[in-house]
Amino acid sequence: MTAPEGLPTPLPPPLLECVPNVSEGRDRAALADLAERLSGIDGLRLLDVSSDPDHNRSVVTLAGHPTPLREGVLAMFAWADERLDLRSHRGVHPRVGAVDVVPFVPLAGATMADAVAAAEATAAEVASRFELPVYLYEQAARSPMRRLLADIRRGQFEGFSDKIALPDWAPDFGPSRVHPRLGVTVVGARFFLIAVNARLATSNASIAKEIARAVREANGGLPGVRALGLLLESRGCAQVSMNLVDYRRTSLLDLLARVGAEARARGTEVIATELVGLAPAEAVLGPLRSTIACDELDGRKLVEWRLLEEELGSRLERRDEARR
Amino acid sequence: MTAPEGLPTPLPPPLLECVPNVSEGRDRAALADLAERLSGIDGLRLLDVSSDPDHNRSVVTLAGHPTPLREGVLAMFAWADERLDLRSHRGVHPRVGAVDVVPFVPLAGATMADAVAAAEATAAEVASRFELPVYLYEQAARSPMRRLLADIRRGQFEGFSDKIALPDWAPDFGPSRVHPRLGVTVVGARFFLIAVNARLATSNASIAKEIARAVREANGGLPGVRALGLLLESRGCAQVSMNLVDYRRTSLLDLLARVGAEARARGTEVIATELVGLAPAEAVLGPLRSTIACDELDGRKLVEWRLLEEELGSRLERRDEARR
Repeated sequence: MTAPEGLPTPLPPPLLECVPNVSEGRDRAALADLAERLSGIDGLRLLDVSSDPDHNRSVVTLAGHPTPLREGVLAMFAWADERLDLRSHRGVHPRVGAVDVVPFVPLAGATMADAVAAAEATAAEVASRFELPVYLYEQAARSPMRRLLADIRRGQFEGFSDKIALPDWAPDFGPSRVHPRLGVTVVGARFFLIAVNARLATSNASIAKEIARAVREANGGLPGVRALGLLLESRGCAQVSMNLVDYRRTSLLDLLARVGAEARARGTEVIATELVGLAPAEAVLGPLRSTIACDELDGRKLVEWRLLEEELGSRLERRDEARR
Repeated sequence: MTAPEGLPTPLPPPLLECVPNVSEGRDRAALADLAERLSGIDGLRLLDVSSDPDHNRSVVTLAGHPTPLREGVLAMFAWADERLDLRSHRGVHPRVGAVDVVPFVPLAGATMADAVAAAEATAAEVASRFELPVYLYEQAARSPMRRLLADIRRGQFEGFSDKIALPDWAPDFGPSRVHPRLGVTVVGARFFLIAVNARLATSNASIAKEIARAVREANGGLPGVRALGLLLESRGCAQVSMNLVDYRRTSLLDLLARVGAEARARGTEVIATELVGLAPAEAVLGPLRSTIACDELDGRKLVEWRLLEEELGSRLERRDEARR
């Protein structure tokens, strides 16, 4: 599987996205320190940091070639090793690691095989450098039991010392004992995932759980949808926290329309939607293209997008001229 | 009035968009020659050329500072002077000039006053260099009669020799006689305009004209909407050709929903929608933001957009370092 056509690639291929989720969403100074460390790595692009205080979790979006991405992930572990301690971590989102999950995603000119290779190399180096158990998941999984993140993460950090002792749950890399502060880490390769949360006009978490059950694929809901019902204490409202793992099977608009309908059927409504991190342009513009029957609608129909492309193109040209 | 917040501006402000419409939409070699001439101008960004054979017209989207934009427009007139002759021009879209209309639009860091100044300077130079009558319209108009493009264009090229002799219709710049091959030109300043066409599942142009009447503001339709009903001979279907002159007053989605409903009420339907040229990101993402109640949805939530921004930023940084 290759990335969608037409992604701009100022850096030569293969270009990957990497979206580590870290178990820190409250300490601004710590997160600023992380951003600074990542920004200093040559060839690594830090595209986004989305933090949630109730989840106590941040989603970091990186892009680049496999080597700077691996460096970035190692820098993130070094940061976590100095700053985080899962024993005192509280958050409403399930997690097993200080750096909880590290997915690689093929961008322009990259294949899933490139993403799997990056995941394997990163997993091996993280495990040996930090003496940390690492599991490979999704497209990088070495057994069907380890494809789904939820299966690996079941039991969470607090229950993992028992789980890791089971023969079925020996890690793919690193020692068979949970790291005291960093827990375990899950590294893998996958297609674009869209993390989207819907806040409800109720503080009743069981309504959010019911809606999550209604929309998630595993319970007969929408294809490619994973969902949890949570209570956001700081905001006093219930939330349906979702992962759309294939926007080509269920569109973002269809998913949110369904969540809205399920909420209304339970006497409440969605008061706000949150996109955690970034989404590929196609996931956002694709549904609109269908709605208005406009075949040519994509990022390149947007003035600002085209201006960025042309500016970049013109600078690359000038660089090439200067080299001649 | 300034441009929307958050537009990326790799070039320092004031940055303008300029969207000349030329009366050539069929001759590919001529259009390729135009693109080549424009691409050679330093500091000018050619973002898009959208051509329509039935309209026999192309919409060119340029961006840059006022000076390279003026150079680009002059190059376009030199091209038209060599290549086009309105006496033999046939097309279903109304026009008065070989270079028919030249609007300037404020982008990042620019005000409407900047766009008006660019329009005036360009109009004066075009008129003197090509001995061409030029009218100022919209925000650059010097009388209320000349605000609306449709009022200036009424009578078209074929009827303009009589019109230009009327005291009310003396041009703002240039001689009071129509240029034999280039006609007259309309130059001005305005907010973003979205040109959108809806093709109908009928070849009955009078249905397209009825729908145009139903949706256009002048007949009590939707705010900021101008519309014409046309027949596209090469495609054997009727078309509603629209300009949305303020997407903040009527959203693109609402406009197209209304056109769809009007079509169905007349026993036909919209088979395809076409965005002519480019649209500002806000016009496309804004309606989606409302639909899904996601406040933070804008271009910077898109992976590819952020990657372009970061690539460009990193190159600008490296340039600055090299200068130090």
